[in-house]
Amino acid sequence: MPTYHFFFVTLASLLFSTVACAVSTIVNWGVFELTLDGPSAGNPFVEVELSARFSHENEMVSVSGFYDGNGKYRVRFMPDTVGDWSYVTASNQSTLNAKTGQFQVTNPSRENHGPVRVAHTFHFAYADGNPYKELGTTSYAWVHQDESLQEETLKTLSSAPFNKIRFCVFPKFYEWNKTEPAIYPFEGTPPHQWDFSRFNPAFFQHFEKRIQQLEALGIEADLILFHPYDKDHWGFDRMGAANDDRYLRYVLARFSAYRNVWWSLANEFDFMKEKKMEDWDRFFRIVVANDPYGHLRSIHNGTKLYNQTHPWVTHASIQNGSAVEDPGRAVLYRDVYEKPIVYDEVKYEGNLPQRWGNLSAEEMVLRFWQGLVAGTYVGHGETYLDPHDIIWWAKGGSLHGQSPARLAFLKKIMDDGPPEGFNPIDKWQDDSFAGTPGTYYLGYFGRQTPTSWQFELNKNGLEDGKRFHVEVIDTWAMTITPIDHVFVTKKKDAYRFEDKDQQAVPLPGRPYMALRIREENTQVR
Amino acid sequence: MPTYHFFFVTLASLLFSTVACAVSTIVNWGVFELTLDGPSAGNPFVEVELSARFSHENEMVSVSGFYDGNGKYRVRFMPDTVGDWSYVTASNQSTLNAKTGQFQVTNPSRENHGPVRVAHTFHFAYADGNPYKELGTTSYAWVHQDESLQEETLKTLSSAPFNKIRFCVFPKFYEWNKTEPAIYPFEGTPPHQWDFSRFNPAFFQHFEKRIQQLEALGIEADLILFHPYDKDHWGFDRMGAANDDRYLRYVLARFSAYRNVWWSLANEFDFMKEKKMEDWDRFFRIVVANDPYGHLRSIHNGTKLYNQTHPWVTHASIQNGSAVEDPGRAVLYRDVYEKPIVYDEVKYEGNLPQRWGNLSAEEMVLRFWQGLVAGTYVGHGETYLDPHDIIWWAKGGSLHGQSPARLAFLKKIMDDGPPEGFNPIDKWQDDSFAGTPGTYYLGYFGRQTPTSWQFELNKNGLEDGKRFHVEVIDTWAMTITPIDHVFVTKKKDAYRFEDKDQQAVPLPGRPYMALRIREENTQVR
Repeated sequence: MPTYHFFFVTLASLLFSTVACAVSTIVNWGVFELTLDGPSAGNPFVEVELSARFSHENEMVSVSGFYDGNGKYRVRFMPDTVGDWSYVTASNQSTLNAKTGQFQVTNPSRENHGPVRVAHTFHFAYADGNPYKELGTTSYAWVHQDESLQEETLKTLSSAPFNKIRFCVFPKFYEWNKTEPAIYPFEGTPPHQWDFSRFNPAFFQHFEKRIQQLEALGIEADLILFHPYDKDHWGFDRMGAANDDRYLRYVLARFSAYRNVWWSLANEFDFMKEKKMEDWDRFFRIVVANDPYGHLRSIHNGTKLYNQTHPWVTHASIQNGSAVEDPGRAVLYRDVYEKPIVYDEVKYEGNLPQRWGNLSAEEMVLRFWQGLVAGTYVGHGETYLDPHDIIWWAKGGSLHGQSPARLAFLKKIMDDGPPEGFNPIDKWQDDSFAGTPGTYYLGYFGRQTPTSWQFELNKNGLEDGKRFHVEVIDTWAMTITPIDHVFVTKKKDAYRFEDKDQQAVPLPGRPYMALRIREENTQVR
Repeated sequence: MPTYHFFFVTLASLLFSTVACAVSTIVNWGVFELTLDGPSAGNPFVEVELSARFSHENEMVSVSGFYDGNGKYRVRFMPDTVGDWSYVTASNQSTLNAKTGQFQVTNPSRENHGPVRVAHTFHFAYADGNPYKELGTTSYAWVHQDESLQEETLKTLSSAPFNKIRFCVFPKFYEWNKTEPAIYPFEGTPPHQWDFSRFNPAFFQHFEKRIQQLEALGIEADLILFHPYDKDHWGFDRMGAANDDRYLRYVLARFSAYRNVWWSLANEFDFMKEKKMEDWDRFFRIVVANDPYGHLRSIHNGTKLYNQTHPWVTHASIQNGSAVEDPGRAVLYRDVYEKPIVYDEVKYEGNLPQRWGNLSAEEMVLRFWQGLVAGTYVGHGETYLDPHDIIWWAKGGSLHGQSPARLAFLKKIMDDGPPEGFNPIDKWQDDSFAGTPGTYYLGYFGRQTPTSWQFELNKNGLEDGKRFHVEVIDTWAMTITPIDHVFVTKKKDAYRFEDKDQQAVPLPGRPYMALRIREENTQVR
């Protein structure tokens, strides 16, 4: 007999389901999990095939199951439509084949907006249409640390501004990261004797718990599927194509049904010298074919970029230490890729001797603002030396830097901005303003220290007589000061509008200042 | 009987050929032209098929012929190997079919280096391996002006620094460009009654003369095959797919054998609203299939970029008004495309009211230098208002600006630099230096006005005790001032070397200054 596990079953759905208690319920974009008993002899990971077809009206979705050890097989499914669903399994084992059942999908809770998708070309939104304003951080190996440190990381994240975290499936072996994890993804003996054909279910069960805990915090889990920080210490970076592909399919079968999962094919893919470009292309094909939900897909570079124009790349995940030092740089990748641009690595706030790890907090925050007015997204990282080598960037724990508070302030401004996202206003002439022409402008002066700003906006969306309110934002001091004057537009020349009385906005002569300019009739959210 | 025309026959080859005077000679990368008499009835442009197969040892090249009016058919061929060649024609007309002949290809003259190719990923070289340091200008419709003005343009080019000029096959109808040309590419009546199936051979003969005159000046002809500056005035921008494709094949059959031809599929392709992306992809396929020599291929954008990662794009031809305002911007497209980056349009030196046409000469020159230290190439244009609307950018004539002299100065520095081209030294940290690590550095300070520069170079290619000479370059005053001190490298930290005595280079506190730093033992060419 199949047994069921239900996640995210709300009280309301339980109440409604009492009228037909034989049919189970699950919230939309929750995880329906079917558990079946099957053979444990031989190697179930390679010998047993299991899948299920889920149906609702004209919709039909096929998903792969997986072996979870101890004779237990599971099929996970994330529905995207409210209503009655049914399933039927298929397997090369009679005990797993042709199992059928029904369940009911109910409205999601208020916090559950579904998976994140690309929206408005350069931005993101949840499946239900709600904006998702990406603000990510990185902690590569936080799930491979002591349990207490992992709990501390989750606690930190619960009050941090980040709504995405990048981390690795495989453990990391690198400077400041040489502790062995408590548990490994394969059966075998560390550091180097593994049976790559036999997964360790306990490793993945633990990993899934962390994905779900992030989901409960409203944080997307940007899972890094391969990385070079191994160099044959364990050998997970050089398992060979057959093992790589089997690993990917297993991960996809296990994790795809979690709505907050993103796939990052690799960190610094080009530093993995054992893999060729064809391998990465094949990995993308495997991910596309085995993730029926189309979670976001990216690949992060070292010094060489993957061809991010490929249609299977949903958004560009870019490491570049200098591209967000200037909005006029950051904007260029938008033109090239016509996808969301996420500068996932722009150096880190910290004090490492390496130049990639010793940004001041001011410089970290500056990069976020420059990226924002360029219509792109920037990722956070922190690398302060620690007596116990507990550095956020790799191990998680607590945040020690001064940027997160400013990023929380920035996030509020992002959330209060145009719901579809920030776009450059006049990218080839003035790279310091983003927003929505005619209604909303966010300008950023970066390291400049102006004492005033002549009210002047690009003509797009404007006409004479539009009324604007201006606020002066100190992005470092985290203050927003309204200007006690209503600016009224008047055409200046072929490209610009100015204030009808040529009024200027006084500024304090400090760096890191921004302006928020909103049309009077635009509702302030 | 076939008749022959020989171009570029040197005195030497004439002498050598006397031993077998029945066999004609032609220099390598010259144009062998076979002329045949054939039918003139019906529509020879669409009804007659003609091609020829040229053979030399194991090499075989098939080229299309074309109808040149008055019953004359021609097949043009550019050999790329010295030695004995033969040919045989194929046609659906018996008078043109199965004609055979031989000729001898001799060493080219000293000035003839063959066609330009991509070299060292980001740069160009002639077919014989000699460097080609691209320095282009644009004059869209110079070949469609009065004969005397065309001659003036050629005279101007003969003493200008440019080794490439971009211009359109079709005439241009645009602000300041409303004069009708003397001759049109199709049979018919201007402005709007054309038989697109019948070409006007006189138009193309004239055009070819200009291509050859440019070749004699050592200037590459970057031919713009389509453009939007017509808007149905003549309708050459909206002929429909069948006419577009026939036009392309005709142009390719006529022009491909000229070694200095480059193909620019379009100017501002995205402004041609009648064409879809599939059209541009098809045009590229037609060019690839009908140009047996593989001349350089690009496509120039308005605001939307073509996907320049496609393998049929040999180099990125980019319009961007702000990308070369900062080397840290310009460099980004190198990473994306891994091809030569040619910023063919970066606004123009001039005084038009439009912001794309009112750069100061200083700003024009600055863009070239920023592009150079970013490892890219920049294009010149000039738009000074003229009482007779003779503006270089569209009509040619004379140059009035102050940038060309400075670009000639720059060209000399490019020519004296690394033969393979300038590459960024440390693109993610310091965007102001290009060259070859360890031997040659060119730094540019742009609008900054430093009074000294602490000798400090990125570690790549360096070791303790290397000796360097430094010259201070005023890119505007066109002076090169050697510093009377030999700088000797000493490791400073994990990333940099400094002078062993921590010497600095004095600078005059003016903008537009550059540094040239060369290793003592590096031969100064």
